[in-house]
Amino acid sequence: MVRIALDAMGGDFAPAEIVKGAVLASQELSVEIILVGDPQKVGQELQKYKDKGKLPVVAASEVIGMDESPAQAVKQKKDASINVAVSLVKEGKADAIVSAGNTGALMAASLFKLGRIPGIERPAIAGEFPLPAGKVILLDLGANVDCKAKHLQQFALMGSLYAKHTMHIENPRVGLLNIGEEKEKGNELTREAWPLLKELPINFIGNVESKEILQGKADVIVCDGFVGNLILKFGESLGASVFQMLKSELSKGVMNKIGLAFLLPALFRLRKKVTYDDYGGAPLLGIAGTVFKAHGRAKAPAIKNAIRETVEAVNGDMTSKLRENL
Amino acid sequence: MVRIALDAMGGDFAPAEIVKGAVLASQELSVEIILVGDPQKVGQELQKYKDKGKLPVVAASEVIGMDESPAQAVKQKKDASINVAVSLVKEGKADAIVSAGNTGALMAASLFKLGRIPGIERPAIAGEFPLPAGKVILLDLGANVDCKAKHLQQFALMGSLYAKHTMHIENPRVGLLNIGEEKEKGNELTREAWPLLKELPINFIGNVESKEILQGKADVIVCDGFVGNLILKFGESLGASVFQMLKSELSKGVMNKIGLAFLLPALFRLRKKVTYDDYGGAPLLGIAGTVFKAHGRAKAPAIKNAIRETVEAVNGDMTSKLRENL
Repeated sequence: MVRIALDAMGGDFAPAEIVKGAVLASQELSVEIILVGDPQKVGQELQKYKDKGKLPVVAASEVIGMDESPAQAVKQKKDASINVAVSLVKEGKADAIVSAGNTGALMAASLFKLGRIPGIERPAIAGEFPLPAGKVILLDLGANVDCKAKHLQQFALMGSLYAKHTMHIENPRVGLLNIGEEKEKGNELTREAWPLLKELPINFIGNVESKEILQGKADVIVCDGFVGNLILKFGESLGASVFQMLKSELSKGVMNKIGLAFLLPALFRLRKKVTYDDYGGAPLLGIAGTVFKAHGRAKAPAIKNAIRETVEAVNGDMTSKLRENL
Repeated sequence: MVRIALDAMGGDFAPAEIVKGAVLASQELSVEIILVGDPQKVGQELQKYKDKGKLPVVAASEVIGMDESPAQAVKQKKDASINVAVSLVKEGKADAIVSAGNTGALMAASLFKLGRIPGIERPAIAGEFPLPAGKVILLDLGANVDCKAKHLQQFALMGSLYAKHTMHIENPRVGLLNIGEEKEKGNELTREAWPLLKELPINFIGNVESKEILQGKADVIVCDGFVGNLILKFGESLGASVFQMLKSELSKGVMNKIGLAFLLPALFRLRKKVTYDDYGGAPLLGIAGTVFKAHGRAKAPAIKNAIRETVEAVNGDMTSKLRENL
């Protein structure tokens, strides 16, 4: 059974929603979850679910805040939950880590303790965008704000392998995020990266424009971490903002209120799609170990989803597949 | 009366929607519109509105396609509608240009014939994003894909002056698009640009994250043209995509169809907001002349809006205000 070290203290709704997500996951999935954090606080949360079996807790006396400087915090707070969770994997006591905490700290702790897969200079965060139909993997989402063309090349290869071995997409279509279709289009970085992606043993489909992200033109889209982070967060906010406008339009006048009553179930389904409540985890590709980042605002269902994806990555032998193919 | 040289041949729906927009504008606004393009094709369109007065046509025998290489096309097609329209301003026969055509060609023709305002190395395209309440100006939207920090500094100053003198915002809040709040956050470009924006005589409010664009945190947001173009086009597609999901959710089942009937007017209002049908024009700031780009997919109402904004910019003496303050 896959063993997951779950950072119980990381994320905006920790530890309550993290523990709740762990309980959900342990009931629905074939997984052993090790909660890492303040034993008292985590224990209190676990009490709420005591009729649902026991989950082991590993003590960590410190927490790295969402806004702390990553490298410094990881070095100074040796007993932070992120550090302890990563150590469990290093020591062979767990197979993978899931954290909704400080992204930079998770990356730094993973780099220090687990290291990189040979051939990868810069591990990348690969996140899923839900599409009207299916999903797309975008990477990097913020680990590398200044990239060289060769880094984008490595992202493309890792993204393709991840899509193939964990998402089970046969011949994943990999695109380069750009502002035009032709290979001459774009900035210096993308113009240099294009031929490097072209020479990889992957299904490179060329440039993908931002308006095509949601159309499902590619399974994997590559960009630098500055751009990826901007697009990700803009997408989240725009989905929420359109929903907000909808709600405010629909609450004007009696006719709309009547109409709204009929539509509530459909609107709730839509809301799930646009506000990313069901969002899962984002793997840190290139780390010599399986590390998944859950969204900082993840609640229990999203934590459960992140755990499910992490289990799939371990079962699909993600890290070995990357190691063999790089 | 302000005289606008309108490129009747540029844009996906030219000349029909451009001519229709010109007729609308000439009826609703105090403006003289000079249509530039193929006299026969433009004349045919004008025939449809012959009871609504006459609009002058200036002949241009060539058209620059939306996907042509800008600099080359502008040099080779001397009699292209974009070239002829810009020449009318150069010769003092018009006060400003509006085109929904090839953005790069419009910028190139303007640079060649009108030149830059002293102090500006790189003119920028400044576009409006509609917000749930109000709007925000984002620049650059694609004219400069590789920028130096000093270029972003110039964009910030131009954006602030435009917001003040054309949009009549008293003390416009100018932000730097970035992936974190603190000044140390971001990539090399934004970290270098932050102190340069700080030293300008503008109301610089620091970094603005992409999730804050739609929250109205700033009146003007500065970024390089690669990022600006990605955000702009992603925003357009996401708005349309959410609306698409909504339509498909709402057309499932009888209950929803009943609800939908009540809601149609509200949904149409919302659609206008999210699909940018009412989108106006984007000024090419830094050109020594008033040049507005309308959206390539602009139909008549959007053309009319772009003309209205151009008239406001001429009346607000946009170019002189920039010249005096740089």
